[in-house]
Amino acid sequence: MKNEEGKLPDANQPISTAMVQARRSEFDFIEDLRERTTSSKGSLPITPGHSVLISGIGDDAAVVRNASSKDTVLTADLLVEDIDFRRTTTPPFLLGHKALAVSLSDVAAMGARPRWSMLSIGVPEDVWHSEFIDNFYDGLLSLAGRYDVQLIGGDTSRTSEKIVIDSTLIGECNSGQAISRGGAKPGDLIFVTGTLGGAAGGLRLVERGAHLADQNLTASDTDSLDHLLLRHLRPEPRVGWGMVLGQERLATAMIDISDGLSSDLNHLCEASGVGAFIEATRIPVDANVVDLSGRRALDPLQLALHGGVDFELLFTVTPERATKLPRRVDGVAITRIGEVREHSHGVKIAEGTRVWDLGPGGWDHFG
Amino acid sequence: MKNEEGKLPDANQPISTAMVQARRSEFDFIEDLRERTTSSKGSLPITPGHSVLISGIGDDAAVVRNASSKDTVLTADLLVEDIDFRRTTTPPFLLGHKALAVSLSDVAAMGARPRWSMLSIGVPEDVWHSEFIDNFYDGLLSLAGRYDVQLIGGDTSRTSEKIVIDSTLIGECNSGQAISRGGAKPGDLIFVTGTLGGAAGGLRLVERGAHLADQNLTASDTDSLDHLLLRHLRPEPRVGWGMVLGQERLATAMIDISDGLSSDLNHLCEASGVGAFIEATRIPVDANVVDLSGRRALDPLQLALHGGVDFELLFTVTPERATKLPRRVDGVAITRIGEVREHSHGVKIAEGTRVWDLGPGGWDHFG
Repeated sequence: MKNEEGKLPDANQPISTAMVQARRSEFDFIEDLRERTTSSKGSLPITPGHSVLISGIGDDAAVVRNASSKDTVLTADLLVEDIDFRRTTTPPFLLGHKALAVSLSDVAAMGARPRWSMLSIGVPEDVWHSEFIDNFYDGLLSLAGRYDVQLIGGDTSRTSEKIVIDSTLIGECNSGQAISRGGAKPGDLIFVTGTLGGAAGGLRLVERGAHLADQNLTASDTDSLDHLLLRHLRPEPRVGWGMVLGQERLATAMIDISDGLSSDLNHLCEASGVGAFIEATRIPVDANVVDLSGRRALDPLQLALHGGVDFELLFTVTPERATKLPRRVDGVAITRIGEVREHSHGVKIAEGTRVWDLGPGGWDHFG
Repeated sequence: MKNEEGKLPDANQPISTAMVQARRSEFDFIEDLRERTTSSKGSLPITPGHSVLISGIGDDAAVVRNASSKDTVLTADLLVEDIDFRRTTTPPFLLGHKALAVSLSDVAAMGARPRWSMLSIGVPEDVWHSEFIDNFYDGLLSLAGRYDVQLIGGDTSRTSEKIVIDSTLIGECNSGQAISRGGAKPGDLIFVTGTLGGAAGGLRLVERGAHLADQNLTASDTDSLDHLLLRHLRPEPRVGWGMVLGQERLATAMIDISDGLSSDLNHLCEASGVGAFIEATRIPVDANVVDLSGRRALDPLQLALHGGVDFELLFTVTPERATKLPRRVDGVAITRIGEVREHSHGVKIAEGTRVWDLGPGGWDHFG
């Protein structure tokens, strides 16, 4: 923890009790967090040959002992209040979940196993003294526990008004087996996990004033509307699929769908130097978006193509290896939506007999 | 990069050109940064047996290949505008320097070599379109280059008003040789690098309206006032000392002075389960603070003890190993200020014939 300049004592004044108390409570908080994180037990067994934590929260830095056969994968995600989330519509438990989920999705997209989390959070003083922080870390640690991820560090600070979160996640994969965006080859098949458009549909509903009845409801207990709200508020990163695709060396390229299928497919194609051809009818549009499309004025295909924040995985596989793909991982299916073409072909989508250029973020009707 | 919810297209509206441009410029920015970081050459040779970067900016996550004989050290520092810095008094070049410097100091305090930086930054739209970002990264990459640190990732976001920065730094040390705060034993000698009180003195002067004449001046070109301002605005982490103390296994415990000598000495003693006795006359008070103390109403010892943000290293050494300590590293000397005692002794400071309890953050006149 660093010194907060705004709290520095004035040279002409004795150090105020309030300042000492405010800082002490931050130290107490860190001590509490240290105890919670060192006693946490994960659900996945860590087999020998993995990296191990030497020391976590409570020193100048965390220390991890590397396994020599592993590569380390590192990602960071910044979440800013009123840009990336709204305090009024995102309960703190779900915000903690989401902060880790977006980073888990990045590590999954590398075909890696998530291991260590570093979480930095800045909050206004009134939030610090509310139950927000406890609920936030409950949500984060609950998701972390499901994947045996340990919180090993981070930082806290006061902010003047808005909440800000930076989630850094460290994962590992077998040496040389990280799956980049750049390995797709013409002829590879293009797959996507789960369904698309649900998270964007949920966001649209939140923007129109819809609220989640009960944040503790599971998806199976809720109707179409709550399902979509949860797709937006409680994203489920495809950690299991990421690890299977990485460990079994099934995917030639992979990216998580955070900007939207159209954008992220273009990112993957640019990095690989290839084109792509996908079929609109194959895209696994979230059935709940379709259910609500009439009554709620949602355009399912538009949301599935450009909505983003679904945190599904988009990946490519050679035709030979495609037969080795499991049907489901953690209950989540995959769908083949098209195939990789030469770069000169461009990135195209077919709807019936018509073929369009699929640019990042939107239809480009010049095809 | 994640989708920014605030920028999601409305289902009933075509995607605006402004949105596409804003996002494209973010992608362009990342591409520029990727080119700058992959082409950067450091000044320190990396010997065989160190971890190597496999891929940095431009995918879902960065990938590092671990060296089996090394442990990985990880730290994060959150800097919030108007809490940890002020835009009006900190030029963006120096803010970039400072964001990395605070993390370098944490890694140095573990006795480790800094290797990889992940930098997340959120800025308001007007700042994004100014020269701020370029100058910020110039400052960060300039300091990174001095220590062969590579920028390998991070995130960017818009904020509604304030700048926020999270600096994550990954270092490495020989396996099992990270220096924690917890290894001090009674009889060990207590040392501190450099001088104390300068940064807090500089902050005090900034708060009273002092400005740096020229941010490109080096400390040797400036007078006492500019020296103090630079101690505050351009902290110099003791990277060289950290690496020497770690590699030569000289220190039994170490911490960087970010909260102030009194607080950080107490942190080290708590972690080690020991007490300490230090002598006020031995504390290396910054000579420029002493110079200005009369005219500028600064209390040098008060600033040196409680001021913080000096980013010097506080460490303990056995009497036998103390003879092996180099006199200077990178031109920076060290000073023995006291010795470690039994826990029951408490943390005390002697001034002449009087001995006081030295509590975190302030004198406690009950000794």
